[in-house]
Amino acid sequence: MSRGPASTAEDPGRSPMVWHGWGDPTRRTGLSPAARAVLTDAFGPLDAPVVPVTLEQVRVGPSRLAPAALAALVAVTGPDGVRDDHRTRVEHAGGRSYPDLVRRRQGDAVAAPDAVVLPRSRAEVAALLAVCGKHRIAVVPFGGGTSVVGGVEPERGRFDAVVALDLRRLDRLVSLDATSQVATFEAGVRAPAAEAALRAQGFTLGHYPQSYGYATIGGMVATRSAGQASTGYGRIDELVVAARWATPAGDLVTGGVARSAAGPDLRALMVGSEGAFGVLTEVALRVRPLPETEHHEAWALPSFASGAAALRALVQAGVAADITRLSDEDETATTLAQAGGWKVAALRRYLDARGLDRPCLLILGWEGSSATIARRRSRATEVLRPRRAIRIGPSAGTAWARHRFDGPYLRDDLLDHGIMVETLETAATWSQLGALYLGVRRAITRTLEGLGTPPLVLCHVSHLYPTGASLYFTWLARQQPGAEVAQWQAVKRAAGDAIVANHGTITHHHAVGLDHRAWMEHEVGDLGLEVLRAVKERLDPEGILNPGKLLPDLPANPT
Amino acid sequence: MSRGPASTAEDPGRSPMVWHGWGDPTRRTGLSPAARAVLTDAFGPLDAPVVPVTLEQVRVGPSRLAPAALAALVAVTGPDGVRDDHRTRVEHAGGRSYPDLVRRRQGDAVAAPDAVVLPRSRAEVAALLAVCGKHRIAVVPFGGGTSVVGGVEPERGRFDAVVALDLRRLDRLVSLDATSQVATFEAGVRAPAAEAALRAQGFTLGHYPQSYGYATIGGMVATRSAGQASTGYGRIDELVVAARWATPAGDLVTGGVARSAAGPDLRALMVGSEGAFGVLTEVALRVRPLPETEHHEAWALPSFASGAAALRALVQAGVAADITRLSDEDETATTLAQAGGWKVAALRRYLDARGLDRPCLLILGWEGSSATIARRRSRATEVLRPRRAIRIGPSAGTAWARHRFDGPYLRDDLLDHGIMVETLETAATWSQLGALYLGVRRAITRTLEGLGTPPLVLCHVSHLYPTGASLYFTWLARQQPGAEVAQWQAVKRAAGDAIVANHGTITHHHAVGLDHRAWMEHEVGDLGLEVLRAVKERLDPEGILNPGKLLPDLPANPT
Repeated sequence: MSRGPASTAEDPGRSPMVWHGWGDPTRRTGLSPAARAVLTDAFGPLDAPVVPVTLEQVRVGPSRLAPAALAALVAVTGPDGVRDDHRTRVEHAGGRSYPDLVRRRQGDAVAAPDAVVLPRSRAEVAALLAVCGKHRIAVVPFGGGTSVVGGVEPERGRFDAVVALDLRRLDRLVSLDATSQVATFEAGVRAPAAEAALRAQGFTLGHYPQSYGYATIGGMVATRSAGQASTGYGRIDELVVAARWATPAGDLVTGGVARSAAGPDLRALMVGSEGAFGVLTEVALRVRPLPETEHHEAWALPSFASGAAALRALVQAGVAADITRLSDEDETATTLAQAGGWKVAALRRYLDARGLDRPCLLILGWEGSSATIARRRSRATEVLRPRRAIRIGPSAGTAWARHRFDGPYLRDDLLDHGIMVETLETAATWSQLGALYLGVRRAITRTLEGLGTPPLVLCHVSHLYPTGASLYFTWLARQQPGAEVAQWQAVKRAAGDAIVANHGTITHHHAVGLDHRAWMEHEVGDLGLEVLRAVKERLDPEGILNPGKLLPDLPANPT
Repeated sequence: MSRGPASTAEDPGRSPMVWHGWGDPTRRTGLSPAARAVLTDAFGPLDAPVVPVTLEQVRVGPSRLAPAALAALVAVTGPDGVRDDHRTRVEHAGGRSYPDLVRRRQGDAVAAPDAVVLPRSRAEVAALLAVCGKHRIAVVPFGGGTSVVGGVEPERGRFDAVVALDLRRLDRLVSLDATSQVATFEAGVRAPAAEAALRAQGFTLGHYPQSYGYATIGGMVATRSAGQASTGYGRIDELVVAARWATPAGDLVTGGVARSAAGPDLRALMVGSEGAFGVLTEVALRVRPLPETEHHEAWALPSFASGAAALRALVQAGVAADITRLSDEDETATTLAQAGGWKVAALRRYLDARGLDRPCLLILGWEGSSATIARRRSRATEVLRPRRAIRIGPSAGTAWARHRFDGPYLRDDLLDHGIMVETLETAATWSQLGALYLGVRRAITRTLEGLGTPPLVLCHVSHLYPTGASLYFTWLARQQPGAEVAQWQAVKRAAGDAIVANHGTITHHHAVGLDHRAWMEHEVGDLGLEVLRAVKERLDPEGILNPGKLLPDLPANPT
């Protein structure tokens, strides 16, 4: 047992991520022999590795920022707060989506922002918005740069130039109200730094998205992040007590009391607005006393469908774990094959003998006092046992916990070898979940088969609610050389259409960005879009904030 | 033990409330000798009873509905769907706020709506909105008529006429998804009917505002109701899975999946919009299996402050009861005096001997299986015991449960005797709660003392959150004959100002209506108001929906 993900040492301090991939590349381990075997088995012999171009080889366009505009920005932040050097522009040329990485690895950062501005205070953020409005500069609020949906693409929209508004200098824990268990952070604090500041005083936020090492508090709130422990701790939108947003129309402060019936909840209207309504500068979040300990365990279930039914029983009985992750048959097979070794072979025989020939792996993570964990586990066991669940000991659970933030590094290794790997996530009510699973799986498989690149499609459930759950898909396939982005677009389109046809949400926790905006009309309806546009027009009349994100273009865009 | 509030038989079927007071007047018991003693002790000898005027004596203005408009409304609903008889207009002349009752008891329903329309379907609601837009008629969505903040006052705004849109005929349970535990209701279903329909299939909504007997599902959602069991079951806004709103700009459907990150939460923007953004026609709510049993118990605590600290410890440890109600010293003294008898005298001596000379009564209500309740109570006891809490047996708990919906009847009895009784509620973070309590208490007391009518001010905490709690104030004072409404306005203004000065919300669960709109600017800020107005303008461009409610008038209203 250890005290949470701080133990993974995923805390890179203040260094930016590598510009062409994930995180700190020295932490990459390369493909293990077992992983190579899985890939060879699925796709044939691997290509020789192709690594990204060097930073110097990356193409960026000339900065379009007019001298007067540049001077006005510098007047706000001082010279060190406005940067247009090659490295800084490339580092802000987008997020970490699959097409982002494909383009940048090939040396394409043509769309890089014209400059990056680094305010030190709320007042500077407001002043920068005023300058950008006056000089007709689009503004992309930039946190950790971890978006996988194009949320920080430097789109100019109808403006002459675009800057990334990097919030990394707004990095303070403003206050901690230990009585009310509320912590107020500036928006640019990275998740590990926020967690460290809280733990020093005996508290935790308990919010661990896979992007944990680099994500910022502001980015998580602006994108309605879920976090791996959301079943226990709640989604970030449930943790927001109050928030302060800088908008071109002024500061908007939402929330602040425990709970209110004073009209519509503006807090929930701004959370998830993805930098299109305002720039989050400060946020008060519910925190909790640091749990005494944590425990991860693993179970095997006879099928994905019966496993999902077991999860439903757990959450509806109020005895779900804080972290839950149920892999489908194929994801389980891949996980076991990657783990390899005689222990796994023995486990397979053991399960096979008990009728689990296509087992589904379930990871449960518990946090709290030892006594509470023991009590909760005992009640969960009562629910799981009659459903032919077999406990397979803690080692698979602790292995998952140890590697829980490693997925993005693996992606870089796969891209080196010409393997596409992409994920998407959705959610639905329990009664719709089975059809949604089959529909999306089929859409991904058929599309890639049709392109001559048959995939491996894996799925897990990772977030439970009394009324439904999330599905998280991963697929791997050989890249189509020279057509990598078109190949990705084809799958993305088919999967998105399958999601909405099967009553899922287009995104459960990755947000909308550029990649999901085409489905927003389906998600909220024509009139819902009009309401969102009305809010945007009131807060950002010129439309300088994050153009092209969140909302689909108007049918007849006047610009 | 009994199976929830259905056992109180508060289910009046389809009859409307009495026009001058609360509910079914045959259920009134009159003031008990003990209650009379409390009042006499506080205010001197009671006045001889003055009862309301008769229905025939009530004054209403002539209906201002033009013949063409009336015909157009009738064309939608048929003749029985449009009513302008005296009784129906008086019954819809407002809600059940203190000034509402004072005026109607005296025969003043001059502001009654020009007609009442009773659609039978969503399509009819939409068609009625179109007719009202065309004929320039203001529309007041009307559920149970239980608003205590002026939420259903028939304000014409800048229109020629006003109709109440009574949703009582939209009274179906549309569907029950037992797998996802989601029930979809039409908006006009009364809470007891909804609960009965669910219980017939083994489920419960678990939502019991004090207005339970008459409130409708739609009204509870539109006003962001809390419910006495919100600590266990969640507020109504947490139970809404999806909702359909008829607006002058078309139907808006919000939500539907378990949880989503697809942009801002429009569901939370519409919940609490109080009929000013749209008319709720259908709503899907989270439901739960009917608990096996329930148990109410009572404790005494040494002071209100130490009691509040104990509640904080309970909720932050995750072991709060489903229902919690902690009375302050004065409310406890009044409750005990009203109960009277030798048992109470013995209890007082028992507590006094243990140092609780000014005890605070704590009611806890638990629902679930016997085993779960036993386990939860045992954990709560571990928290309470070290805080000098003394268990005083279940009888005070069951007495509270038996009378939990009776408060509004008592008000009518007090009004008969010239006693003003009014309530208000607020919430704040735990760290602000003490100052808020003192500030509001002082404002109410000093204002009424200044008017020469010194009050009895009582308070309890009734809704717990990890970050804070609600405060519910009740005050009683002699009415100022002929100046009843002015007297009320003076207290209301002073209390509201004290709330915002002490970081409370202007309303935790009564909503905004007319009475709290003056403080909305403080609650959400200038820019927040502008956002709300932008949403209203998009959904209701003519402004026909519930004029004057929720949003304060513009500083320079162009109309």
